[in-house]
Amino acid sequence: MSIIDGKKIHNTVAQATNVAEYVVARLVDIGISDCFAVPGDYAFPIDHALVHNDKLRYIGCVNELNASYAADGYARIKGAGILCTTFAVGELSALNGLMGSKAEHVPVFSLVGAPALSHQMQRKKMHHSLGDGDFDIFRLISSHAACVSTVITTDNVVAEMDRVIHECFKKRQPAYILIPADIAEAPLTYKHVDNQQIAIYISNPLQLQKALKFILDKITSAKKIVVLPSINLSRFDLNSHALGFIEKLGVPFAVLPQDKCVLEEHHPQYLGYYSGALSNPDVANYIESADLLIDLGQIMLSDINTAAFSTKLDTRNILTCAPDFVAMGDTLLSSVFLRELLDALIPQLPKKDTFVSAKKTVSSVVGRPDEKITVDAFYSRLIQFVKKDDIIVVETGSSSVELPSLRFQENTTYLNQTNWGSIGWATAATLGACIASPNKRVILVTGEGSHQISSGEIGTMGRYGVKPIIFCCNNRGYTVERALDKKEKTALFFNNLAPWEYAQLPCIMGCKDWITFKVLTNSELEDALQKAAQASVGVYIEFVTDKYDYNRSLQFYNKNWI
Amino acid sequence: MSIIDGKKIHNTVAQATNVAEYVVARLVDIGISDCFAVPGDYAFPIDHALVHNDKLRYIGCVNELNASYAADGYARIKGAGILCTTFAVGELSALNGLMGSKAEHVPVFSLVGAPALSHQMQRKKMHHSLGDGDFDIFRLISSHAACVSTVITTDNVVAEMDRVIHECFKKRQPAYILIPADIAEAPLTYKHVDNQQIAIYISNPLQLQKALKFILDKITSAKKIVVLPSINLSRFDLNSHALGFIEKLGVPFAVLPQDKCVLEEHHPQYLGYYSGALSNPDVANYIESADLLIDLGQIMLSDINTAAFSTKLDTRNILTCAPDFVAMGDTLLSSVFLRELLDALIPQLPKKDTFVSAKKTVSSVVGRPDEKITVDAFYSRLIQFVKKDDIIVVETGSSSVELPSLRFQENTTYLNQTNWGSIGWATAATLGACIASPNKRVILVTGEGSHQISSGEIGTMGRYGVKPIIFCCNNRGYTVERALDKKEKTALFFNNLAPWEYAQLPCIMGCKDWITFKVLTNSELEDALQKAAQASVGVYIEFVTDKYDYNRSLQFYNKNWI
Repeated sequence: MSIIDGKKIHNTVAQATNVAEYVVARLVDIGISDCFAVPGDYAFPIDHALVHNDKLRYIGCVNELNASYAADGYARIKGAGILCTTFAVGELSALNGLMGSKAEHVPVFSLVGAPALSHQMQRKKMHHSLGDGDFDIFRLISSHAACVSTVITTDNVVAEMDRVIHECFKKRQPAYILIPADIAEAPLTYKHVDNQQIAIYISNPLQLQKALKFILDKITSAKKIVVLPSINLSRFDLNSHALGFIEKLGVPFAVLPQDKCVLEEHHPQYLGYYSGALSNPDVANYIESADLLIDLGQIMLSDINTAAFSTKLDTRNILTCAPDFVAMGDTLLSSVFLRELLDALIPQLPKKDTFVSAKKTVSSVVGRPDEKITVDAFYSRLIQFVKKDDIIVVETGSSSVELPSLRFQENTTYLNQTNWGSIGWATAATLGACIASPNKRVILVTGEGSHQISSGEIGTMGRYGVKPIIFCCNNRGYTVERALDKKEKTALFFNNLAPWEYAQLPCIMGCKDWITFKVLTNSELEDALQKAAQASVGVYIEFVTDKYDYNRSLQFYNKNWI
Repeated sequence: MSIIDGKKIHNTVAQATNVAEYVVARLVDIGISDCFAVPGDYAFPIDHALVHNDKLRYIGCVNELNASYAADGYARIKGAGILCTTFAVGELSALNGLMGSKAEHVPVFSLVGAPALSHQMQRKKMHHSLGDGDFDIFRLISSHAACVSTVITTDNVVAEMDRVIHECFKKRQPAYILIPADIAEAPLTYKHVDNQQIAIYISNPLQLQKALKFILDKITSAKKIVVLPSINLSRFDLNSHALGFIEKLGVPFAVLPQDKCVLEEHHPQYLGYYSGALSNPDVANYIESADLLIDLGQIMLSDINTAAFSTKLDTRNILTCAPDFVAMGDTLLSSVFLRELLDALIPQLPKKDTFVSAKKTVSSVVGRPDEKITVDAFYSRLIQFVKKDDIIVVETGSSSVELPSLRFQENTTYLNQTNWGSIGWATAATLGACIASPNKRVILVTGEGSHQISSGEIGTMGRYGVKPIIFCCNNRGYTVERALDKKEKTALFFNNLAPWEYAQLPCIMGCKDWITFKVLTNSELEDALQKAAQASVGVYIEFVTDKYDYNRSLQFYNKNWI
């Protein structure tokens, strides 16, 4: 998978005539085939380079925040993404989205077009600046959302692009690439010579040997082991390595909300979903009584993952095998890359015999056909609607606290921004996921409050001919906030929303051929689901539920929020 | 005008029981009567304080960027505004808007709710963070968009609010106020005692005397003087001071695009609009041959104001009287506040006799009734539609390069983000202007590309019952970018847009009683204008023009862009 190892699969660099074209070609050649952008005058030379590269598709978004979310959704599927914005106003608008990619280990290359270096050096008063001659402040701000950043010049472009790609893939976090407009248009002085060091990550051999011995000792002496695979395995393309590890060892694995579907939930060694008080008690008891928890990829014991810190884990029992270090208790071995570690470790693993099979719960449909839709009624039907190989994009909110505990069909890809949790992400990330996966069904589940934020991208979906299936829950407010706010009932209105007609959005945004529904009863929902299952066009289903119809998990949070 | 001088007009502080209520009350008591917000769990205690203050109205926006734009539009009219967002995801989304307020000298108090200090000190892995225990990084980022920032604690809240208000009004730029959730809810330990030093700005007396002598010497020896008033006069509430200065001196004044309408354009001493090559040649010649240009308030000779640096000014002739310094050539006198300076200067001014009256151009309607609408046809009708006392909000783009040269009726307020130029601002700023001015007509002129970015606030307008008149120019793309991009005709599509049905937006966003139009011919436009003039509800007029129908100014930029 060249997009992951940084190697060329195309050679569009050969056609590059100027600096911007080189930068774009270098990213295209490792396998990124689409970019998400909002044009702007300082970025024109980059925009031209993007549209002229014949292996790249330019997806123009409604605004920069949405574009950054779309690039994030795309990169979660494809391995990496490109975002292009203009100086200051554009990049600052995208900052929250890019910071989310950093928080969730998603590699997005953020290309920003800046005023000409000649204008910067004269400290001219340019638009999109504070008018004080300081052009560097926005780079300083934006760099915080990246793991590596650069200012491209005519002389450094080849070396810098190698460095940036290397570092970006090492951390799987955004890279920030600023290109002044006159530099972007400058002719290339020399072309790239393949750098064999790109994306090859070599552990410190001494630390790697120590880590192997340390881990094997812990495994050998443990009586009861559970593996907790992190979503980072997917980010670092290590899912099959992890599966090899688990199968060789023969122990059960369980996932936290953020890590849902990172490994196959229909695998016989899958123990279940673990999130403290919101877990199945048998699953929680098993995990909490293990004497060795192997964290593969660096799980996060965050407020959301632990259901408001309700997990009962002895953290001294957690062996963390992070992407680039190994740690347990007072021991930390740095510069140990997980790929190398697993390659060396798997052949030496003993077979442990601690495996227990999880109880497979069979979900049944809730609610009579003529009844109003409840969230439980919806989820019970959704779980049957989602098919093998579907991609399901879930918004932060009531859906993201309930859906992780439900088991979908085999090989479902589950996308959610569990840690960063910026509402609005899911609708735009759905655009990105659709562009990344033209041959898969992409299903969005969102509340209407989040959806309002980025709904403009429905028009972009229509414009570029992608065909998601969108479920928009209309319960007249920010439901998750109604649930979390202890004083909510005394001050209702700040969680209210303007009463949009959601199901009409696709039509007025140019998605003329989509089929749309506004459903109130279970039978109407079932009818819509049936039509959606057969549709060859985009589908939009607005379903209406009661204002205070929380699911089980939100009822827990209502009483136990941090 | 207490909102400007920081003095109390209410006393809601007396009712405050906790820290968040105190912070809010302190801002309400100087006269801010509305806030723009998106709720979030870390900000709940602030949200509650906002909704419970009975002198304050809570305006819930669709997203944080829009909320920051709305607060900016509001503050331009009202003198100051309040924005409230949640930690990290919220504040970062608003950053571009707040930075625009900094660039354009608009005082917005940005209240941000953070995780509880107790969680921060334990470095817990909280949602909306990078999960690395660093909670300070977002404050560091956001502070760049403010002229003063603070982290509120139980012991510092009274002193800090005094300091923040003082500094914010001194610079007329945003203030950043971060309140951890547990602090926000903490009981007040003591209440505010009026601080007489709030918003009293005292010049360095030695520098003030030097400045007076310096300026009077320059005026006495000058043969031909023109005053260039800056929009900062409006920000610092010094319009009447400036008028006093100009009338006592008896010289003409002219305005740059950014400064349009800062002083009455129907004043007999108004010379005209000045923007380099885009000016009336007589006006430009007069200004460029003056031997003393008095810059009142600090004009900005930026790319946009100077029509791509086409002004022919000898900058050595410019005497800058900035809000807090005086400068000319190699001289700079700091710590001289403009209010004190003008108070002392005006009585001593000589009467100069250099006044020439500007040619008053009479605009006539362009285009026959049955013809398709052109931009010139639209502007010629708009100029007759705008009435005395209207507020006109103009988006960055083709409208903002053409409209400043047109003269509106008396006492028109003209809002545009000339320097920062972030598209999308105008639609949300219109919401803010409407909330700030319930008794005035607020007219928005926007292109559809910008409008897509923040159109969600139409729903907010309906929700809060404000009644703007919206003109949305539909020419199927980012027209200003088509004009500025020299290669545009070879790569059309990145300036294209999804084909929305704009005139249907109000209806599906809950503005059921608005009257809406989609007009293609001049007679249809005239009919819509006539109905709009009589309407007592919100009005939305989508007018369609040709894709390459640029106005005169854009034709100039097409050939002369930086």
